[in-house]
Amino acid sequence: MTTPTDTTAALKLSPCPPVPPSDDGRTQLKLRRVAIDTYRENVAYLHRDCELYRAEGFQALAKVEVRANGRRVLATLNVTLDPRIVRCDEIGLSMEAFAQLGVEAGHPVTIQQAEPPASIAALHRKIGGERLTREEFYAIARDIAEHRYSKIELSAFVVATHASELDREEVYFLTEGMIAAGQRLDWRERLVVDKHCIGGIPGNRTSMLVVPIVAAHGLVCPKTSSRAITSPAGTADTMEVLAEVELPIERLQEIVRAHRACLAWGGTAQLSPADDVLIAVERPLSLDSPAQMVASILSKKVAAGSNHLVLDIPVGPTAKVRSVPDAQRLRRLFEYVARRLGLSIDVVITDGRQPIGQGIGPVLEARDVMRVLHNHPHAPIDLRQKALRLAGRLLECDPDIRGGDGYGIARDILDSGRALAKMQALIEAQGARPFDPERPPLARHRFEVTAARDGVVTGIDNQRIARIARLAGAPKVAGAGVDLMRKLGEPVRAGEVLYHVYAEYPADLEFAREASAHASGYTIGEPHEVPQMFVEF
Amino acid sequence: MTTPTDTTAALKLSPCPPVPPSDDGRTQLKLRRVAIDTYRENVAYLHRDCELYRAEGFQALAKVEVRANGRRVLATLNVTLDPRIVRCDEIGLSMEAFAQLGVEAGHPVTIQQAEPPASIAALHRKIGGERLTREEFYAIARDIAEHRYSKIELSAFVVATHASELDREEVYFLTEGMIAAGQRLDWRERLVVDKHCIGGIPGNRTSMLVVPIVAAHGLVCPKTSSRAITSPAGTADTMEVLAEVELPIERLQEIVRAHRACLAWGGTAQLSPADDVLIAVERPLSLDSPAQMVASILSKKVAAGSNHLVLDIPVGPTAKVRSVPDAQRLRRLFEYVARRLGLSIDVVITDGRQPIGQGIGPVLEARDVMRVLHNHPHAPIDLRQKALRLAGRLLECDPDIRGGDGYGIARDILDSGRALAKMQALIEAQGARPFDPERPPLARHRFEVTAARDGVVTGIDNQRIARIARLAGAPKVAGAGVDLMRKLGEPVRAGEVLYHVYAEYPADLEFAREASAHASGYTIGEPHEVPQMFVEF
Repeated sequence: MTTPTDTTAALKLSPCPPVPPSDDGRTQLKLRRVAIDTYRENVAYLHRDCELYRAEGFQALAKVEVRANGRRVLATLNVTLDPRIVRCDEIGLSMEAFAQLGVEAGHPVTIQQAEPPASIAALHRKIGGERLTREEFYAIARDIAEHRYSKIELSAFVVATHASELDREEVYFLTEGMIAAGQRLDWRERLVVDKHCIGGIPGNRTSMLVVPIVAAHGLVCPKTSSRAITSPAGTADTMEVLAEVELPIERLQEIVRAHRACLAWGGTAQLSPADDVLIAVERPLSLDSPAQMVASILSKKVAAGSNHLVLDIPVGPTAKVRSVPDAQRLRRLFEYVARRLGLSIDVVITDGRQPIGQGIGPVLEARDVMRVLHNHPHAPIDLRQKALRLAGRLLECDPDIRGGDGYGIARDILDSGRALAKMQALIEAQGARPFDPERPPLARHRFEVTAARDGVVTGIDNQRIARIARLAGAPKVAGAGVDLMRKLGEPVRAGEVLYHVYAEYPADLEFAREASAHASGYTIGEPHEVPQMFVEF
Repeated sequence: MTTPTDTTAALKLSPCPPVPPSDDGRTQLKLRRVAIDTYRENVAYLHRDCELYRAEGFQALAKVEVRANGRRVLATLNVTLDPRIVRCDEIGLSMEAFAQLGVEAGHPVTIQQAEPPASIAALHRKIGGERLTREEFYAIARDIAEHRYSKIELSAFVVATHASELDREEVYFLTEGMIAAGQRLDWRERLVVDKHCIGGIPGNRTSMLVVPIVAAHGLVCPKTSSRAITSPAGTADTMEVLAEVELPIERLQEIVRAHRACLAWGGTAQLSPADDVLIAVERPLSLDSPAQMVASILSKKVAAGSNHLVLDIPVGPTAKVRSVPDAQRLRRLFEYVARRLGLSIDVVITDGRQPIGQGIGPVLEARDVMRVLHNHPHAPIDLRQKALRLAGRLLECDPDIRGGDGYGIARDILDSGRALAKMQALIEAQGARPFDPERPPLARHRFEVTAARDGVVTGIDNQRIARIARLAGAPKVAGAGVDLMRKLGEPVRAGEVLYHVYAEYPADLEFAREASAHASGYTIGEPHEVPQMFVEF
């Protein structure tokens, strides 16, 4: 803590040159880019000897507004004593904040204490457990999207909406507010379809099969995905093994016009930007309340221009949703909000007892996907089956397809090679990267985890396997991850391999080895101990 | 956001030398002090090219544990590209975190992903609205005191305990847990008295009068105070105008043994350290729930060794507590928790309609206090009266004093000069600073705020006046602040001075002038519009 005494001392020791005022009489500082990644929290760095530091509120953690050229960013203030970070006539901005301001280094800027976000009163009402109006949710979503909330305020919002649960009308207001706070794509098509999974199941890469299948049939499916947040691979990470995924929005639109689909990263389009900001807080808190999940997913989908969505809710003992009643409650909330938004939704409750497919990690998952498209003999059957069923449901939104016929049509498209051809067209259009599914570029180092006893596999812990894959380097190292050799219910003998772990760096290998030695994620037991499938899908 | 592609590119461009492992096989980095004040949030800075950055969780905002010499600190990770901040064989720590680790720069340290705090499960239960046990509150308080919670988690705790209100038993558990997580002073006296105000009223410096009065009578009153958090002056800031307040705990104990009292800053003694951490979040959120107020105040008092407390709750339209029923509710909570802690408490509800005394800001308040002690003709009467009444209540905890006699005894001690003599003894003992109350060292620049019309003062906004005093530089600039020329109910003519504002720096002067021009904090009206005193104290 800075005390009055040592401030004075410092001021005497290193007198700061007076800084010229701008036209409106405000002191101007020179902008500097401080090469620190503060993960979506804008941070401004001010030297303690800067004359502005003495002014009200200009103390560590205060929120300041930095202006230049009619543009502005909001940032949390950190105070420094090191002139190599900022000199006392400068204001530093962390990397993202600097990019947001969009002004070159050295440019004169003014700073002032930020007005508290207009929606803070509404936030306080929600903390107090009150119900908020549509206008209040709109204001909150806008302030969040514009980075007006500090991490502390974001956390307060996430916890308050979790603790005093939002009613479904409020979830709808929040979702609509989040859509309104960003861009909204319009594909000028009657039917724009999408599929989404609430997450939590490693290897669950069905989008990369469903999209080419339904696009081959002729449906418009402009799929934008996120990168992994807490998982070993997101669809964007896996697709990136095969093709470019960071496409300018204009290029994305061209591809969709030409091919009816895309498989791209959604981060370039400013779709529901409040969602991206909230995730930065929900992730470290591991909070994923139904209200926030619904608002997050549906705001992204509607902003991306979809009007028909198949939603996958996996249920299992180590999945996000652990019981069918919970899944049904979540389904009803999705359906209510989707209807209010004018989005047609088909919620599918699926088997989430174990990872889907064989590989976990971008390269390994890309290999599985391509094997399914190639009808390869080692293609994982569960991944193929699940993708066909989801694609079938999506196809049935075509008024020309009768209920129940979707699965068969999807299977024909896959088996005939038309899905593969569509995928290859998408890969070419987005910018192909060389990839041979029979020689996937796996990470250099490998170790195996073996069974300690004879028996059958009675459990595979989704979270544990995901953690081991992440420790091994996925998704940052695309070729790292876990390759499963046994699935639920399969017999295994002591010493046989349960899975391989791939890592590029010895340190990562050791982290993953320690973790798998501590708990492999597998349980081996008797056949009757295999958990029942919660749902028949 | 860092993408897999550009990480690889950066690694190729600036290969990092391999770093030697320590005995336990962990990679060692060199410690560096990064001169950034992150206001009580520990931050660690890692270069993006450091080989450890690739490992699981080592990404921006992850919580890491930095170890050296058997000591450790927890910190939130920021990732940098600038070798002037940290090189890729170094780990940087923000100023407070560096001081906590207590190891010199350049020392080899290891880092690893921090285990989530053990009490996070309890935090999640509280977010879910559940009631927590004594053990859970102890664990939470310990983790907070040890800086194991991130700002996001702290905010989550503050909001969750606010939203799903703690019952009074839980407030007691939390308070006790906060006491247990720090040091506890033992004065080896049967009766150790203290007084405290919940805050919110500028100029309310009664402690500096009550302490010398009751100590002159012979009661033990080891008063430790905080510095201003959101106000223009705390007792520690004001006392610092007259004497040293940052005293080592041993010196403090000597002074109390010799003089029965002290008036010192409490920050050196590690009393209820969890409270200091929580304040760093409550302040920017402006959240001050009854539960947290009670836990904060009572944990500090009990840890400081007091067993008898007079607590001042001011009530008024711009005070923290705005109605007598609210004050009564708060009183009952204080009384319940105090009884469970074995602390005798006397809650006094006081007039909080306007600032107390004349001056606002450390030097101006020190002037007022010294004028009261000197029985100066310009001594503010309201400050004198309130201090005498509170001192009287405190004196009555002496079993030899009959109920109702305290006020008269306090007045005798003050009028006779014994309180002044005691104050001078305390000032000498703590280390006197030169101060002449008739020539207070006020800040260089001054402007006045005048009445726009004839009438009587019908309102003085505590918060507005505090804000103007802070904009003028208080408490960082001790001589800055506001000097009130008119109080509630007093007649005033158009053009007459309502108050003077003192500032040391032209920029501060302008900030304060803008604010007072926008809203002076005074309302002038008719005599019948003067708000009634809520309470007769």
